[in-house]
Amino acid sequence: MKKRLSFYFDYISHNAYLAWTQLPALADEFDLHIEPVPVLFAGLLNAHGQLGPAEIPPKVRWMMRDVLRKAKRLNIPINPPASHPFNPLLPLRVTCQVNEEPARSRLIDELFKATWVEGLDVSGAEAVIEAASKAGLDGEALVKLAGADNVKQQLQSNTAQAIDIGVFGVPAMQVDDEQFWGFDDFVHLRRYLAGNDPLDADEYDRWLYIRPSSQRRRP
Amino acid sequence: MKKRLSFYFDYISHNAYLAWTQLPALADEFDLHIEPVPVLFAGLLNAHGQLGPAEIPPKVRWMMRDVLRKAKRLNIPINPPASHPFNPLLPLRVTCQVNEEPARSRLIDELFKATWVEGLDVSGAEAVIEAASKAGLDGEALVKLAGADNVKQQLQSNTAQAIDIGVFGVPAMQVDDEQFWGFDDFVHLRRYLAGNDPLDADEYDRWLYIRPSSQRRRP
Repeated sequence: MKKRLSFYFDYISHNAYLAWTQLPALADEFDLHIEPVPVLFAGLLNAHGQLGPAEIPPKVRWMMRDVLRKAKRLNIPINPPASHPFNPLLPLRVTCQVNEEPARSRLIDELFKATWVEGLDVSGAEAVIEAASKAGLDGEALVKLAGADNVKQQLQSNTAQAIDIGVFGVPAMQVDDEQFWGFDDFVHLRRYLAGNDPLDADEYDRWLYIRPSSQRRRP
Repeated sequence: MKKRLSFYFDYISHNAYLAWTQLPALADEFDLHIEPVPVLFAGLLNAHGQLGPAEIPPKVRWMMRDVLRKAKRLNIPINPPASHPFNPLLPLRVTCQVNEEPARSRLIDELFKATWVEGLDVSGAEAVIEAASKAGLDGEALVKLAGADNVKQQLQSNTAQAIDIGVFGVPAMQVDDEQFWGFDDFVHLRRYLAGNDPLDADEYDRWLYIRPSSQRRRP
């Protein structure tokens, strides 16, 4: 039986896009079943009281340079998005309605490309309908149903379940009980999948007993 | 003339410790002058309204596993610190008083080791005095002067200067006008130093014009 890799993502994330482009080769190499799970990144930030990179001006400048370096090195096409941050609810909710593979992955692929290669505004219906059509789906019907309660609830429940298992950012890749975070973690994920994870479980256990002796005074 | 690499760090950071261990080899290979700059990580967080990894429970669990994987792979000794987070003001202020090399780097080396290898409580005088002694310095005198106004001001001014140039986390490595963040950025830093930075300046310019079309509603 194939090993399952759950991929928690939001279209808003540069690094989720980069990671998505690498998954097919990873799935082939390690015989994985990829389960893509759309979540609302803003919901993760809210749950942890955290800021996103786009909310810290010097961090977003660093991040753009970092993402361009990684994309160039791996020859991943990338172009500036129409705007950023944008409201990702519509493409996420449209994705929540398509549960059959390979349609689901084709749709995700087209929505990531629309955002990060074609510079289209996926917060609006037009670009989402076009992406769905390219994936062979009825985009108008999907957009029409995106506001239905059960669809909204599906995205909320994906996000809540991700928070429950300790997802704090996107992309997150969950295999067995192990969570890898961010495109930069692929190096560790690959070693784990190859059976070469250098992490020593006994050594890690010793780190679980560390306690704080000081807390930052927040302004 | 040697190229200067400014290394912004706080003893509280696992990744700053890992990065510090890699600097001597980097300096040799690329003929660098390393300028270590102690800063208060909490001051960077406060300036940006950001949380540290230790303030997000699932992130600190991920981070410990991540740091142990990196340390094991590179054969860097690491052991659980006496506590974490701890108050790093004393070792930072002691470091601010020692400006001559190689004494400054020897002191930093001993303080990082005391924290991340020997499991000593560097928020207190005893461990700091011992580390300073190992570096050939008068630890008692340094600890006695750590509360002096000019010493406190030096740390504050280091931190303010770091914030001014866009440092948002530690470790940060500044070379020319280029900022690299975190141990994971060494791969990009090495390419930059070797003259193989894949970043295309014209391409990056296009990313400067991205504007937000939506803002997260914060709870």
